Amino acid sequence: MNSQEMIRKIARPTDSKIVMLVIDGLGGLPFPETGLTELETARTPNLDKLAAGAISGLIDPVAPGITPGSAPGHLALFGYDPVGCIIGRGALEALGIDFKLQPGDVAARGNFATVDSRGVITDRRAGRLSTEQNSKLAKMLDRKTIEGVEVIVRTVKEHRLVVIFRGQGLADEVGDSDPQQTGVAPLEVTALNQAAQKTAAIANRFLAHAGETLADHHPANTVLLRGFSVKPEHATMAENYKLKAAAIASYPMYRGLARVVGMDVLPTGTSFEDEIETLKQNYDKYNFFFVHIKAADEAGEDGDFAAKVDVLERIDGALGGLTGLAPDVLVVTGDHSTPARLRGHSWHPVPVLISSQWCRPDGVKSFSESACIRGGLGKQPAKAIMSLAMANALKLNKFGA
Amino acid sequence: MNSQEMIRKIARPTDSKIVMLVIDGLGGLPFPETGLTELETARTPNLDKLAAGAISGLIDPVAPGITPGSAPGHLALFGYDPVGCIIGRGALEALGIDFKLQPGDVAARGNFATVDSRGVITDRRAGRLSTEQNSKLAKMLDRKTIEGVEVIVRTVKEHRLVVIFRGQGLADEVGDSDPQQTGVAPLEVTALNQAAQKTAAIANRFLAHAGETLADHHPANTVLLRGFSVKPEHATMAENYKLKAAAIASYPMYRGLARVVGMDVLPTGTSFEDEIETLKQNYDKYNFFFVHIKAADEAGEDGDFAAKVDVLERIDGALGGLTGLAPDVLVVTGDHSTPARLRGHSWHPVPVLISSQWCRPDGVKSFSESACIRGGLGKQPAKAIMSLAMANALKLNKFGA
Repeated sequence: MNSQEMIRKIARPTDSKIVMLVIDGLGGLPFPETGLTELETARTPNLDKLAAGAISGLIDPVAPGITPGSAPGHLALFGYDPVGCIIGRGALEALGIDFKLQPGDVAARGNFATVDSRGVITDRRAGRLSTEQNSKLAKMLDRKTIEGVEVIVRTVKEHRLVVIFRGQGLADEVGDSDPQQTGVAPLEVTALNQAAQKTAAIANRFLAHAGETLADHHPANTVLLRGFSVKPEHATMAENYKLKAAAIASYPMYRGLARVVGMDVLPTGTSFEDEIETLKQNYDKYNFFFVHIKAADEAGEDGDFAAKVDVLERIDGALGGLTGLAPDVLVVTGDHSTPARLRGHSWHPVPVLISSQWCRPDGVKSFSESACIRGGLGKQPAKAIMSLAMANALKLNKFGA
Repeated sequence: MNSQEMIRKIARPTDSKIVMLVIDGLGGLPFPETGLTELETARTPNLDKLAAGAISGLIDPVAPGITPGSAPGHLALFGYDPVGCIIGRGALEALGIDFKLQPGDVAARGNFATVDSRGVITDRRAGRLSTEQNSKLAKMLDRKTIEGVEVIVRTVKEHRLVVIFRGQGLADEVGDSDPQQTGVAPLEVTALNQAAQKTAAIANRFLAHAGETLADHHPANTVLLRGFSVKPEHATMAENYKLKAAAIASYPMYRGLARVVGMDVLPTGTSFEDEIETLKQNYDKYNFFFVHIKAADEAGEDGDFAAKVDVLERIDGALGGLTGLAPDVLVVTGDHSTPARLRGHSWHPVPVLISSQWCRPDGVKSFSESACIRGGLGKQPAKAIMSLAMANALKLNKFGA
């Protein structure tokens, strides 16, 4: 019996409610002149009060020293082995725009991009064209059939699109056409094994067709593809935890991730206040809510320490709407750290608090990286948080006689 | 090489002595008005003094969030993987009454129970009949032979008994007859696979025979069976650690668990003082002692905070008899938490201290849940404690060149 089988065996359905608030990119690094991280700089009286009555600690999303992408970061928080459950970027992107991938589909993430007269990439994002313009161009490319394979093209946002190949005998072991740099030509899509040769050939034919079709639409005069991937098959949160789970997230990828593990994805607005309103409206219908806030990560990726501080203060200010619902268990954490100083995801462990009436006090009085080092949860793999949330919601039976 | 193989490779037999004192259900939760757990409320100057010279920490018996039964809780303390080593309830119960299970035996845990004239269960414990009465009735059922299978019936305590099926071609993949509720009829024992059909048939014939035999012995007019299981086969403590190990425990299940891992089970009395006397009498004959105290768990299960505090103070008061023997290593911990507020086992990590002359000081001055958060052992899986005890007893060679 492995640990997932154990949890399945002892999980029980109850009415108690768990809310998992994921502040994307929560963890940070100190601002050199103050020695305080973004979270330590922000005035967060509500999070601090919550931490004082909760049990706190730090989580490693994947493993010590590993900087996670969004997918492993979230899968770990949902209790899955983040190393064993890789989801391709293309599949994620498709799921994130509510596209229903079918078994056998191969999805790739795409960019509209600019090439010069020699075919060299000059802008990987085609001047970040508008979503409306993207939508017009995507329609021109959509639903071409190549050798019996249907190629479905969907707009994501700005320059981003997703391309789904649907037909017999496709495989996702193919390389990217996107070289992820400018100044070079796009790559030919290559098959990484025999079974993927058909897919590579069709992808190259589609890309040639896209180049011809878009020739006169500078700056969006080509398409780059990467992250070819099939539909991921994961056990659902209902299967693993007997939970009725809902996701409240405005950003497509996180909606897609939630769908991968079988959550209902609720329509919501883009602000934290909108998300709390969605939570209130649906509070009686589910017993697990994943609430995702993207803005902290965006500020970190922009290298904007002050903006990240501001995001955290705004979250704290709106927190009362969530705590007012008095969920049996409230988890506050992040899927990874995004220190403004590093302008990207990092490996630093992420603060976590679990608030419930069954928490043993740990003397932590504020919610911050340095306070959480001394928390009663100690250092945990992120994967352990779901078990702890389930336990604190009294949703796990005793294991063994 | 897995970790058990590694330990086997480096363990060496020495005369140094390890005493592992397991206070069943040790960990707790705060009493709301004081914010202090049972252990923090109890006056325990001797344990505190021990902690000041020891290294402390918290252990997760099975995994974060998992509430363990007694068997996984103890197997982990003995250094076994608690998820990989499941022991059936029937086998445990048989081992706990000193019954020598043979390979091929199938044991089930039984209750004398009451059914009404329609065959509906009205009391799963037959009014908790006396152990004497149980003994008389068990003799009436004992040693019946059905299709060449001998059915051995043994009294455990009050309404509880154990039934052992001994013969060729038996298997333990059968369901329970005990529905674990009143107001319904007992279940027919069903085979979960082809190999278990004979066992199911014989169990049902035995249960019919028991019903007839007990018809006039209301309230104990039927038998319910659950937890069918074969003799567990585990590597012994001698094989894994080169230890000569003895168990001092008064409660049957813990004696059974010790026997599963090959310990000698010493006759002893029911009080901690009795157990210390047994330890003294046998101190020269072994180099590892498992000493088990049940009372703290019982008080916790009863929801009696004050009684649990009292038990802990009494243990502390008698501790001098044990520390006076000056074992090379003294481990004090529990197999799981049993907070009085939860009236049962819980998932909360358990305080542990390891006292030896080779401990690195960690600044912990008292033995409590909150003090142990800051202990030098940090948070460990319970399974790690045996290696640490062995190391501190200088019973492990260097690993690798």
